[in-house]
Amino acid sequence: VPEQTSYALTPSPFQGVTLVGGGPGDPELLTIAGMRALLGADVVVTDRLGPVSLLPELGDVEVIDVGKTPYGPATSQEEINRILVEKGSAGLSVVRLKGGDNFVFGRGFEEVIDLRDAGVPIRVIPGVSSPIAVPGLGGVPITHRGVSHEFTIVSGHLAPSHPDSLVNWTALAAMSGTIVLMMAVVNGPAIADVLIRHGRAGSTPVAVVVDGSLPTQRVIRTTLADLGAVIAAEDVQPPAIFVIGAVAAL
Amino acid sequence: VPEQTSYALTPSPFQGVTLVGGGPGDPELLTIAGMRALLGADVVVTDRLGPVSLLPELGDVEVIDVGKTPYGPATSQEEINRILVEKGSAGLSVVRLKGGDNFVFGRGFEEVIDLRDAGVPIRVIPGVSSPIAVPGLGGVPITHRGVSHEFTIVSGHLAPSHPDSLVNWTALAAMSGTIVLMMAVVNGPAIADVLIRHGRAGSTPVAVVVDGSLPTQRVIRTTLADLGAVIAAEDVQPPAIFVIGAVAAL
Repeated sequence: VPEQTSYALTPSPFQGVTLVGGGPGDPELLTIAGMRALLGADVVVTDRLGPVSLLPELGDVEVIDVGKTPYGPATSQEEINRILVEKGSAGLSVVRLKGGDNFVFGRGFEEVIDLRDAGVPIRVIPGVSSPIAVPGLGGVPITHRGVSHEFTIVSGHLAPSHPDSLVNWTALAAMSGTIVLMMAVVNGPAIADVLIRHGRAGSTPVAVVVDGSLPTQRVIRTTLADLGAVIAAEDVQPPAIFVIGAVAAL
Repeated sequence: VPEQTSYALTPSPFQGVTLVGGGPGDPELLTIAGMRALLGADVVVTDRLGPVSLLPELGDVEVIDVGKTPYGPATSQEEINRILVEKGSAGLSVVRLKGGDNFVFGRGFEEVIDLRDAGVPIRVIPGVSSPIAVPGLGGVPITHRGVSHEFTIVSGHLAPSHPDSLVNWTALAAMSGTIVLMMAVVNGPAIADVLIRHGRAGSTPVAVVVDGSLPTQRVIRTTLADLGAVIAAEDVQPPAIFVIGAVAAL
């Protein structure tokens, strides 16, 4: 092993709001740009997920926790946007820190629109996105040569039968590639049912990665037909990522 | 702006092979874990894309360039695997550095299989994946509330008519969410045609982000019907990411 000197990350303040994708949870999966933005922040507006364990180490920074609990109480998106506009308009260096990537079911663009309308400068630093990274950490490749040429990432926040659901489940079931479900602990069983009803084999392999990237990470292998029973038996709690398809058996 | 001390990244050597996702190209979009792995490496086996500009700064490291040119000459995957097994078996700290994330159309799992079979220890450090990060950097949110509850990432490496293509184009065209095409500069026009033939409107917005995250980044807005003409008129060259759907007009 060679002798290498360490590499110093210097603060990168930005007057306005920097959207930082924090990755799945392990602070080491934050990007260099994201860490430098945090080191240069006056204010951090943070969610419940992401690399929250490093926030206490940041020193003299105002941390505003607007974390949402699934289906629980939360700061409204309107209030989050209002806080970002207020702090960003005040000449401060503000970081909007989210788990994963801000634009993957993260409502980041609603924040962008309000900031843009208010004339607040915006900087975007993408993050390691959980639906891609977490399967890899769990030993499941989201693609594999000869197995899939596409993959679909689906929010499971709404039940398939919900009138606001925008997913074409018939088409999704007919796709040949990997399906990754996020935020699907509650609706996973109903989604498995609808995929089977529309033609996916009940024997389709499924991998469930719970607490991806964290010390408590675990991987459960099952099938589409058994997914509901396994979620209950293993007491799967968020955050969890479900990988559906042949890659889940590799 | 507060006074913050800088944050020192120390080398993180690993006897065996560490798969490091390098992100879309800007070295600042490498993860902290990925940078620490590079600082601790004896050998780096690198591709053409990703944060290659930082390799000369690493000091006393053997850099093996196995970069593939699209449709051009390349080190074969078999030869890459052989190099990884040889170096990884020799007690060295080896980093396999790729653009984006190793498991997104990256053949990373083929490397994992050969390393596993050879008994070489493996560490996985996911990266910022280009099909998600690059749209965000280009001002295009891959998801937006009320617009899409899913998105599909498709390799455009093969033409839709190619006998080895695994994509169900009928189903893909019928999906309601965002479609992101990677490696599609050559086949983009044929893919646009097949999506229109299967029912997507020719007026569907498309955003093309070329050289995402690099100083040469540019964004071109067009429609599905005009995509082929725009690729030619704007002389789009790889790497480019195509975002198809309502989000491309936000």
